[in-house]
Amino acid sequence: MGEAVFTVELNKWPEEQTVKTHNRWHPDIPIVQWFKPGDEFRVECYDWTGGQIKNDDSANDIRDVDLTKVHYLSGPFGVEGAEPGDLLVVDINDVGALPQSAWGFTGIFARENGGGFLTEHFPAAGKACWDFHGIYTTSRHVPGVRFPGIIHPGLIGTLPDRALLEKANAREAALLSTDPERVPPLLAPPHADTALMGAMSGAAADKAAREAWRTVPPREHGGNCDIKNLSRGSRVYFPVYVKGGGLSMGDIHWSQGDGEITFCGAIEMAGFLDIGVDLIKDGVSKYGITNPVFRPSPVEPHFTEYLVFEGISVDEHTGEQHYLDAHIAYRRACLNAVEYLKKFGYTGEQAYVILGTAPVEGRISGIVDIPNACCTVAIPTAIFDFDIRPQAAGPQRQVGGVQIALAN
Amino acid sequence: MGEAVFTVELNKWPEEQTVKTHNRWHPDIPIVQWFKPGDEFRVECYDWTGGQIKNDDSANDIRDVDLTKVHYLSGPFGVEGAEPGDLLVVDINDVGALPQSAWGFTGIFARENGGGFLTEHFPAAGKACWDFHGIYTTSRHVPGVRFPGIIHPGLIGTLPDRALLEKANAREAALLSTDPERVPPLLAPPHADTALMGAMSGAAADKAAREAWRTVPPREHGGNCDIKNLSRGSRVYFPVYVKGGGLSMGDIHWSQGDGEITFCGAIEMAGFLDIGVDLIKDGVSKYGITNPVFRPSPVEPHFTEYLVFEGISVDEHTGEQHYLDAHIAYRRACLNAVEYLKKFGYTGEQAYVILGTAPVEGRISGIVDIPNACCTVAIPTAIFDFDIRPQAAGPQRQVGGVQIALAN
Amino acid sequence: MGEAVFTVELNKWPEEQTVKTHNRWHPDIPIVQWFKPGDEFRVECYDWTGGQIKNDDSANDIRDVDLTKVHYLSGPFGVEGAEPGDLLVVDINDVGALPQSAWGFTGIFARENGGGFLTEHFPAAGKACWDFHGIYTTSRHVPGVRFPGIIHPGLIGTLPDRALLEKANAREAALLSTDPERVPPLLAPPHADTALMGAMSGAAADKAAREAWRTVPPREHGGNCDIKNLSRGSRVYFPVYVKGGGLSMGDIHWSQGDGEITFCGAIEMAGFLDIGVDLIKDGVSKYGITNPVFRPSPVEPHFTEYLVFEGISVDEHTGEQHYLDAHIAYRRACLNAVEYLKKFGYTGEQAYVILGTAPVEGRISGIVDIPNACCTVAIPTAIFDFDIRPQAAGPQRQVGGVQIALAN
Amino acid sequence: MGEAVFTVELNKWPEEQTVKTHNRWHPDIPIVQWFKPGDEFRVECYDWTGGQIKNDDSANDIRDVDLTKVHYLSGPFGVEGAEPGDLLVVDINDVGALPQSAWGFTGIFARENGGGFLTEHFPAAGKACWDFHGIYTTSRHVPGVRFPGIIHPGLIGTLPDRALLEKANAREAALLSTDPERVPPLLAPPHADTALMGAMSGAAADKAAREAWRTVPPREHGGNCDIKNLSRGSRVYFPVYVKGGGLSMGDIHWSQGDGEITFCGAIEMAGFLDIGVDLIKDGVSKYGITNPVFRPSPVEPHFTEYLVFEGISVDEHTGEQHYLDAHIAYRRACLNAVEYLKKFGYTGEQAYVILGTAPVEGRISGIVDIPNACCTVAIPTAIFDFDIRPQAAGPQRQVGGVQIALAN
Repeated sequence: MGEAVFTVELNKWPEEQTVKTHNRWHPDIPIVQWFKPGDEFRVECYDWTGGQIKNDDSANDIRDVDLTKVHYLSGPFGVEGAEPGDLLVVDINDVGALPQSAWGFTGIFARENGGGFLTEHFPAAGKACWDFHGIYTTSRHVPGVRFPGIIHPGLIGTLPDRALLEKANAREAALLSTDPERVPPLLAPPHADTALMGAMSGAAADKAAREAWRTVPPREHGGNCDIKNLSRGSRVYFPVYVKGGGLSMGDIHWSQGDGEITFCGAIEMAGFLDIGVDLIKDGVSKYGITNPVFRPSPVEPHFTEYLVFEGISVDEHTGEQHYLDAHIAYRRACLNAVEYLKKFGYTGEQAYVILGTAPVEGRISGIVDIPNACCTVAIPTAIFDFDIRPQAAGPQRQVGGVQIALAN
Repeated sequence: MGEAVFTVELNKWPEEQTVKTHNRWHPDIPIVQWFKPGDEFRVECYDWTGGQIKNDDSANDIRDVDLTKVHYLSGPFGVEGAEPGDLLVVDINDVGALPQSAWGFTGIFARENGGGFLTEHFPAAGKACWDFHGIYTTSRHVPGVRFPGIIHPGLIGTLPDRALLEKANAREAALLSTDPERVPPLLAPPHADTALMGAMSGAAADKAAREAWRTVPPREHGGNCDIKNLSRGSRVYFPVYVKGGGLSMGDIHWSQGDGEITFCGAIEMAGFLDIGVDLIKDGVSKYGITNPVFRPSPVEPHFTEYLVFEGISVDEHTGEQHYLDAHIAYRRACLNAVEYLKKFGYTGEQAYVILGTAPVEGRISGIVDIPNACCTVAIPTAIFDFDIRPQAAGPQRQVGGVQIALAN
Repeated sequence: MGEAVFTVELNKWPEEQTVKTHNRWHPDIPIVQWFKPGDEFRVECYDWTGGQIKNDDSANDIRDVDLTKVHYLSGPFGVEGAEPGDLLVVDINDVGALPQSAWGFTGIFARENGGGFLTEHFPAAGKACWDFHGIYTTSRHVPGVRFPGIIHPGLIGTLPDRALLEKANAREAALLSTDPERVPPLLAPPHADTALMGAMSGAAADKAAREAWRTVPPREHGGNCDIKNLSRGSRVYFPVYVKGGGLSMGDIHWSQGDGEITFCGAIEMAGFLDIGVDLIKDGVSKYGITNPVFRPSPVEPHFTEYLVFEGISVDEHTGEQHYLDAHIAYRRACLNAVEYLKKFGYTGEQAYVILGTAPVEGRISGIVDIPNACCTVAIPTAIFDFDIRPQAAGPQRQVGGVQIALAN
Repeated sequence: MGEAVFTVELNKWPEEQTVKTHNRWHPDIPIVQWFKPGDEFRVECYDWTGGQIKNDDSANDIRDVDLTKVHYLSGPFGVEGAEPGDLLVVDINDVGALPQSAWGFTGIFARENGGGFLTEHFPAAGKACWDFHGIYTTSRHVPGVRFPGIIHPGLIGTLPDRALLEKANAREAALLSTDPERVPPLLAPPHADTALMGAMSGAAADKAAREAWRTVPPREHGGNCDIKNLSRGSRVYFPVYVKGGGLSMGDIHWSQGDGEITFCGAIEMAGFLDIGVDLIKDGVSKYGITNPVFRPSPVEPHFTEYLVFEGISVDEHTGEQHYLDAHIAYRRACLNAVEYLKKFGYTGEQAYVILGTAPVEGRISGIVDIPNACCTVAIPTAIFDFDIRPQAAGPQRQVGGVQIALAN
């Protein structure tokens, strides 16, 4: 399966560990190790907070996460012969937990700290911890659910070149300037203080840190796509921007629903990836590539039965009609699912966490029927240990007695 | 399978046929036939244009569709005992083509006539005609693809009550007033001239027509959701607003990709539905329902291999950064897929039509990673009669020689 | 979808209808219609008994079926250019019920009339009738189950040539001679009296009828394979033995479990097939073909959850150990499933019928672990309207009150 | 995931390791560790030969395997409260390779040493070694294939009680006596010399060894079922015969096709299982259980496209007709697949190994159509890195240049 070429020391903060991680994207971050096309290797990764979150019943740690100090990435790795314009073929042959850290957590981020998709409804910090049972997980904070993982890296991508770096910095700065004081913020601008630049040091590192991308959003190079289907067994094709490609990865999720709606919405964990690399020379122009393309895995969890909730682009607070707004439509679909699940005794926060973590499918079902976008969220019914399908007698079970961990 | 209770005369315009259809939603449209819970029946439906489109090689008919005269609905049907606050359980036991009309069409709507999802890229009217081969379809206008249908009604819903009617009219009027002259328009406001109000007539019909909903968007009652997964074998739970429910349906699609992106983007056809009805008394409050909920079918076409394209919320024209805009992210994902398919010799319009018609999955993959939404569109590779997966040698086949039908 | 080229008159016995059917296989049965490679056409078929079975609550008709007068086949159809050694590519584009006959039946054959797989346990004739609800079926004789159809022709094949005819006749005669009086019989030898030889007549027909194959077993040409996965959307490759191929078909099943264990074990019906034909010249030697090969359909019903029963090759009556006998192992697996289902209130006959009709999977799981073959039968749990999975409290529902139809 | 309660020392022969294994089944083998219902734990296992096979290019080790010294089992484990007549609920939460032994092998057993399913065709010993790449495997001995694992224990079961022990011994002795000198043998009778009886010792162990079951066949308690679908994520219900149940397991397979046809036909390896246990009191009578029952996993590899080969019960050597013999029919189906694959340049042995190892489905498709059973073997087309589907031009690729390892 390939040797582990990047290891993490879970008993140290990422800032202190021997092998240098990076938590920014920049063209100049040096390649840590080179491979040949066809090579395979194992990469260990911190959880996205670098160990800030504990397996306990308080959400204070979620409340206090410093978002400038997250996404400690493993890499960048170089592939010999990779040049700008090529496609880097990346086999995610396996992803798993580290034996010494076989648990995960889900955070609802507080509105003041960035919030999540439903932050207006759930503004306070919350946390659920998950135990792994082989392919399944359960949470003491969320009764009645047990589901197989769709393990994947939330974050994986190649290094941008300078042109892409500057283009994105410019467009993001323009957006930020429209409402720089917004809470939650519009985006995360460069922030040098807490930047880890891998093996860079000194003035060069300082200079690069001031312009380096924060890792929050996905961009043309991949990055924090949070696509649950980049799972164990998938193959991804990344555009190459710099010599060697510079592939980095991290933010491993044991499971996630489409959208990762609570922001720290997946089941977050430290873990490993088994990676294979190859090249398609000049693949960007051969295939007209702008963003990464991928092929999902034949061992994704599969389900036949779903319960599907629809949402349309009408604001739930004001009743205002929006024009083909898929963001609002998906939010309404999720809120509809939350209301449904509450009828079985779940708290809203528990329902929110279920949608964020379980392998739910979020779809843009209709996007042309003016003025309403129609989005749907599909929940596999088999994740519940009781029957959640509508029936004449109404809900037959009330879970309850526990709640997710809350901040003080 | 139940007797046909609503038949269409394909050799007549809908306006002229014996059984009265309706092309608006209004609480006062009379129930055409009553059923008991547990009953099953067959319903025939016009194609959404009521026969305006011909199986030929010109898109002039698509260009000229009068959007005030579409969605000729079959119904409304009543269920005994259904009262406001109940859930109407609707089994879509089967959907199919009518023997005398075993073909379908896909239209790219001209920008001047409403356009579609990619109308800035494909502003001209276009048309592709599809032949059915049992469960499969092919088009003389789109070489190299053959796929199984995911047959479904684009439009199905219950009658709104007056409160819902007025609420939606108010919110839509408010949106329209923000840019009433926009091309394409923000929405389709009430329009009495061409309204068909079912069995209503005279002054009552005229009055109702002036306030009746146009059928273009989905709303809380269902309506034009264009969800491909409301397919043969699915079960839908609709809120009941008026006594009897008033279930109507139409706009049958032989297949559609998520989003129905060319607007007339499915494979449109006349057809039939085999419907079963039942009730969950007081289901709206028992389950906290706002919009319809459904369970998909065990015979949806299934695929293992997909090629998935990502998109982020950066405008392709201006490079402008948008805040978690899933509409733009999905558009970028679709455009990325179009560019890819063009490398195999497809015209942009053909690629657009493939995405609109084939059973592609459109997902909101990440919706919290500020400022970029990440949407994906997944194309099943098996719909092509050649290998579309990326490979070192580049695309190995160039389709071509034909194009979709264009308007003069 | 192609024009109907072979129609059946359900109000006449097959022997009396205008278009001549055949119920034997023989090289000299004349082609009824010729097609070109690439052609598509529709074929109507009788149910396998040619209308002997009624939709009622008596199994006397099942008890009295004359097995020499069954499998009224539609065809043979010729494909221009097909020569011995070619592969005939047959697309089963669709299969369905005839509108005028939208129901089906399942028979348990009496031991004296051939019996079924569990005939020692269920020696008496029985019948269940099934109603179709779009893609689903239910039976008033088997409560608590509802499942989607996996519609397919039980019987489809090409005409044998004389060498194959004689080879199979010889090997079957040899087997029959080992126990010619066995009840149930070892096989069905040629029987001229009730033979229908299509368009043949006179002395040639009489002579051919005396040597023509009975249609009961599958053979190298295909024939009565009763493979549920030759379903709508599948593609089959048949060896060609005679000029034109001579493709015939019939015995349509609305659904069937692997093994078709009650003998008349599928849901039998009259129906239609939409067929497409093509050729692979010299395909038999190119691909080393002895028996037909096929590719299943992407719209087969799919399930995630199954309950699977194991069986080993120990005789249930005597306790005798058999050597890697997959027949006995599968029988034991089926009997284990029957006993399980009886705990929910089903009669043995009802359980037997469920296994014969529902889309259950019968597998040869282990065939080398001397002396026990291990076979499994997997029942999709979703076909029941209650939970059949084992639980601590034991079975929570007792169906009952009805039984399958029995013979006097 | 539970602590490892049974560890193996791969650098020692099983006979020499600290924790005692057993390679026989007997009621008196002492429980090695007790658990409570609801507990979870990890179990390590030897490969079935206990380390006799090397990762090299010679099959001499396969040729020389001593079949009396195999199936070194981990256990037996007891569950508190388990009594005869209960069902032991076993969650196979995970199965995987051991980090220090991440490879596997497939053996074709020589006819003189027991042979395999096609031993008359492939009488010589052979071996293929497999490398694991995350969820995928490839073999330097079998070019052109790469497939995801369906990892499972070949062998898992509860301890028999004395009555079952004696019943099976009697029936097996009776069969053996019909042809005691047969090559390959009819079965594996008790054999004390090489018996490992776990923690038993002295005279009691000697006595028990003389009557203890060999582990080759599956029996009512489970045992060597070699069911590929007892995979990671499945749940199995075992009958309990002795106090505590006495659950043992071993013979881990990285992948296997239905039937495990080369005898050592799976990809054999050492590995671990994550096990959870629970009880259904009195479950045997509540559910009418004779053999284990199980529910498969939602993360089994899934495929849409298969190429399916049929076989009928006519002996390939003599042309003799057999009566509904599923063993022969499946053999013919497998041989048909072998001939097909040889057209792409595979040796017969390579094709045999592919059928034994890849996740192929072996089905009893028709078992009542006298005199021919019809069995099918379905090969997922996606396991090949080229297109194996029939096409007009014939096979387009010839693999070759390598072969499986052979014995001198």
